[in-house]
Amino acid sequence: MICSRFDDSDFVRACRGRPHERVPVWFMRQAGRSLPEYRAVRGDGSILDAIADADRAAEITLQPVRRYGVDAAILFSDIVVPAHAVGFGVDVVPGTGPVVERRFATRSDLHRLRPLDPDADTPYVIDTVRRAVAELEVPLIGFAGAPFTVASYLVEGGPSRHHTRTKALMVGDEALWHELMGRLAEMAIASLVSQVEAGAAAVQLFDSWAGALSPDQYRRSVAPHSARVLEALGSTGVPRIHFGVGTGEFLDQMGDCGAEVVGVDFRVPLDEARRRVGPGRALQGNLDPAVVLAGESAAVDAARAVLASNGGHPGHVFNLGHGVLPESDPDVLARVVQVVHDEGQVRCE
Amino acid sequence: MICSRFDDSDFVRACRGRPHERVPVWFMRQAGRSLPEYRAVRGDGSILDAIADADRAAEITLQPVRRYGVDAAILFSDIVVPAHAVGFGVDVVPGTGPVVERRFATRSDLHRLRPLDPDADTPYVIDTVRRAVAELEVPLIGFAGAPFTVASYLVEGGPSRHHTRTKALMVGDEALWHELMGRLAEMAIASLVSQVEAGAAAVQLFDSWAGALSPDQYRRSVAPHSARVLEALGSTGVPRIHFGVGTGEFLDQMGDCGAEVVGVDFRVPLDEARRRVGPGRALQGNLDPAVVLAGESAAVDAARAVLASNGGHPGHVFNLGHGVLPESDPDVLARVVQVVHDEGQVRCE
Repeated sequence: MICSRFDDSDFVRACRGRPHERVPVWFMRQAGRSLPEYRAVRGDGSILDAIADADRAAEITLQPVRRYGVDAAILFSDIVVPAHAVGFGVDVVPGTGPVVERRFATRSDLHRLRPLDPDADTPYVIDTVRRAVAELEVPLIGFAGAPFTVASYLVEGGPSRHHTRTKALMVGDEALWHELMGRLAEMAIASLVSQVEAGAAAVQLFDSWAGALSPDQYRRSVAPHSARVLEALGSTGVPRIHFGVGTGEFLDQMGDCGAEVVGVDFRVPLDEARRRVGPGRALQGNLDPAVVLAGESAAVDAARAVLASNGGHPGHVFNLGHGVLPESDPDVLARVVQVVHDEGQVRCE
Repeated sequence: MICSRFDDSDFVRACRGRPHERVPVWFMRQAGRSLPEYRAVRGDGSILDAIADADRAAEITLQPVRRYGVDAAILFSDIVVPAHAVGFGVDVVPGTGPVVERRFATRSDLHRLRPLDPDADTPYVIDTVRRAVAELEVPLIGFAGAPFTVASYLVEGGPSRHHTRTKALMVGDEALWHELMGRLAEMAIASLVSQVEAGAAAVQLFDSWAGALSPDQYRRSVAPHSARVLEALGSTGVPRIHFGVGTGEFLDQMGDCGAEVVGVDFRVPLDEARRRVGPGRALQGNLDPAVVLAGESAAVDAARAVLASNGGHPGHVFNLGHGVLPESDPDVLARVVQVVHDEGQVRCE
């Protein structure tokens, strides 16, 4: 158990459902193209180059905290960093997303996913965490891609709408599927543990594409591996957030994987999400990021509706229901932070 | 009320939850690129040209019935046909989808959506329905795009992931939004009524993108217009199917719009969907179309799981949870039809 100087922060206390002062708020993709200060330092080239430059990556991590006064920073990185670092052959193409040179297709591709040695393979991630934490007065959230979402990029070769190759492997060769997922789980564990050891005060497991699955597919083919990752982080003592999009039908399973906090997209109202997840877990979410583009008035109304739907429950971290869209106006997001801080109520339970 | 010679078909009886012999089955996009006989007659050029050729469109409509022995045909057409026919300026680009010349952005764009006169604007649709019905021994399903999904193409200018422009209009200028939706609802009504008068024995309203919405957004901005369409079709007496993707959180609302049948994607098990929709409505679905690509054994297992999840309820039309993917093997789909027909049980209620 690593004791953190942020254990008494609103963010960590909300993750644990404990009483705290203000409703904490941060935004997925708060560090990114919506910010002019990001565009100024990001440079051209692959995002993987910016991530490998700890100086720049730490600066980008800090920018939204300075601008918005959010209650947590999130490491500037990408979910394919570990696979890239072990030489699988993946790049992130601007406007497209992760693209793989040679798809994962058969057992002979397994050797391309050797174990991650964070000190040797991703020292820049550790360095970025250390630098950011040294500057921050709020918790830093480390993160990794969940095995399914990373697998989907490796198997499809890039972003996919129907995930047909991934599902074909998942149901067509279960033994190979579980070996692939097992390797990706180990990589996520290694990366997350290294981030916590460097000072991350919480971790988030991103399963962005899990909404492509039915509850049964998730149960059989995915949940055990995400649970393995989250359970392995348990001994670190930091809160674990488990997030997906379009995962309303198995929010209960996502909680049962062993997370203190379940991320909820904007499709499931928080009161309904809480019924599904059950007591004893916090929720994170869930303002529709598209509404931020509809202007301040609409965004503020929607933010108030999220607060109302939570009803003052102490286990709530305010966030978007998905990442900040690049066209977002930072002033609207700043106003949302203000509304959450000024108007959010935290009940004593 | 138009009496149909198909009122006693398994398909129509299942739509009404009445006792029948075999579980009826058809597939969304059963007429399409997965069939070699389709590729042989489809031609190059825009799909709108093929749709405007009633001879070819009727042939394409019939092909999957001949091949699979499915229990219903569906009109070969596209949801943007009415908007195209009134001169809005929309084409369907292969591999991309509907693309609009000038986006719907302001009140001055309303005049570009004059009322549809099916006899004058889309005589080829009526002609296709008549020709197909004359040949068919199973019901023909007519269809239209639901106002939200059509609006999203017109406002975004093409397919969209986050529907940000559409949502900005929806929450930013509610008066204009409702006028736009009202016009699209009237166009859908006119088109569907003309299809039923020409012989369609059922209709399906496709709201393919409604899953981009929260339950509250759907209730306030979308449901009244879809309800208007479905209610207007009530006097025709044909069963009405209401379908969306990722709409698990508001299946109840979709049923309440006035449909006999609610389409369910593969994310919500049928037993759970039935709880949400309530008694008195049938369900359509919900085999994961991606699993068809995993081969016959996986597809048959999944089809059996769908049948089991329905538990013999007479209000069930077997279908995929979304359209047939172009890479699908027709032999696998043929085998699914066989399994549904041979093994599907219909309980007497």
